[in-house]
Amino acid sequence: MIEHEHRLRVRYGETDQMGVVYHANYLAYMEEGRTRLMHSRGCSYAELERSGYGLAVRRAAMRFRAPALYDEELLVHTRVDRVRGASVNFVYRITRATDGTLLCEGETELACIDLRTTERKPCMMPESVRRDLGE
Amino acid sequence: MIEHEHRLRVRYGETDQMGVVYHANYLAYMEEGRTRLMHSRGCSYAELERSGYGLAVRRAAMRFRAPALYDEELLVHTRVDRVRGASVNFVYRITRATDGTLLCEGETELACIDLRTTERKPCMMPESVRRDLGE
Amino acid sequence: MIEHEHRLRVRYGETDQMGVVYHANYLAYMEEGRTRLMHSRGCSYAELERSGYGLAVRRAAMRFRAPALYDEELLVHTRVDRVRGASVNFVYRITRATDGTLLCEGETELACIDLRTTERKPCMMPESVRRDLGE
Amino acid sequence: MIEHEHRLRVRYGETDQMGVVYHANYLAYMEEGRTRLMHSRGCSYAELERSGYGLAVRRAAMRFRAPALYDEELLVHTRVDRVRGASVNFVYRITRATDGTLLCEGETELACIDLRTTERKPCMMPESVRRDLGE
Repeated sequence: MIEHEHRLRVRYGETDQMGVVYHANYLAYMEEGRTRLMHSRGCSYAELERSGYGLAVRRAAMRFRAPALYDEELLVHTRVDRVRGASVNFVYRITRATDGTLLCEGETELACIDLRTTERKPCMMPESVRRDLGE
Repeated sequence: MIEHEHRLRVRYGETDQMGVVYHANYLAYMEEGRTRLMHSRGCSYAELERSGYGLAVRRAAMRFRAPALYDEELLVHTRVDRVRGASVNFVYRITRATDGTLLCEGETELACIDLRTTERKPCMMPESVRRDLGE
Repeated sequence: MIEHEHRLRVRYGETDQMGVVYHANYLAYMEEGRTRLMHSRGCSYAELERSGYGLAVRRAAMRFRAPALYDEELLVHTRVDRVRGASVNFVYRITRATDGTLLCEGETELACIDLRTTERKPCMMPESVRRDLGE
Repeated sequence: MIEHEHRLRVRYGETDQMGVVYHANYLAYMEEGRTRLMHSRGCSYAELERSGYGLAVRRAAMRFRAPALYDEELLVHTRVDRVRGASVNFVYRITRATDGTLLCEGETELACIDLRTTERKPCMMPESVRRDLGE
């Protein structure tokens, strides 16, 4: 599958007293990566929610290889790993833009939920989304 | 007016590479302080929202006196400064628990909004909330 | 191994527009859980850093079972899964305090690093920390 | 003084359950704005810290005019309000990129501190920084 690349710059508040990016912030970088991947395929997550569907993170995993520093430019490489009827898996590689060093590898599984029910039940993804995310 | 005191402990992710609490996190500490003040007066902000009213921050100001460090216990001293029909002002002093050092002074103005309208128009605060927050 | 229990309350800023806790915040809850477990065993992570050692998150994984809501009290159940010479694994279960519902399961692997070297090389954990974390 | 403009996009995790950007995140947007203003004048805050000087936020104030939504593009308009020997004031206007609606006005006062002293004493700003930030 084709990999999407998103560039971002580390903010000061994303560092911690060890002088590197606090690990939880990589989940936000990964979220930004998949949002932009979807945008690039003509699929807006914001609009998806307005139409009554959400993609809720059900599972997340990360492996940290090297630290990212304040003000560094990072590349978030995102690709769709697998699309099923009611869920989708994304995988990520985050690298330092200047030299390509691998900083973090991650993956997330997202389940489609029906935002119009108060219980937010799992449901099938709209056909158009599966098409946009699939190959 | 009577001051409410809430104790919390600085989390690692709340520090930045300067080795101190990142300034934006004090707004979260202040939010926690006023939520607990409301709780202590029998007024739950969570229930207020469920009943259709929100309190939106319209103005915030902070003065930073000394840095807070990771794992330190802080005291958030909160009091209601002024209650009007459709808004309320809180003032805060955040101190280090061990020695009382003043770390941050703040104030916020919150406006009551009607969560049942899509425009979220300003509205009068429910009488019960004004009573709980007033003297 | 003995499980440590830490109670916390969800902050407003930790929710997202889906009306539930944003998934990245569970990593902060887990961090708070393991810090308190260490405290309860007479081992302060803050002091560990001051003595020149850090514990850096090398791997993290989470499975989300049910959403947490604003102002809910959560219990973070933390236990040491495995202690090796230069790293330690923690596992976590986060439950809703009122009814025990399982919200999130997680695990993290932390590697000991030498904060006195600029490269922050992996190193053996101080003997006292291994003893405090071990059974 | 000349205003600097920085464009950013609201992340999902920056919203709260009211469906809008949580107020504390505007401080991070303002921080990003002034970092980019400094970059645009050939002055890197990251390098400033490496050379032993920090700019610590001493005062911050914000007025919220209208809410920002997830995935919206915002413009952070930053300008230097006043440069003194040991401190500098920035003012900010954050607008919605599509229609120019004013969302937030803010200001911050930053004091120069000496990072090579453990007490991080206030100190004069390096001459080059004052020149870059001044008119």
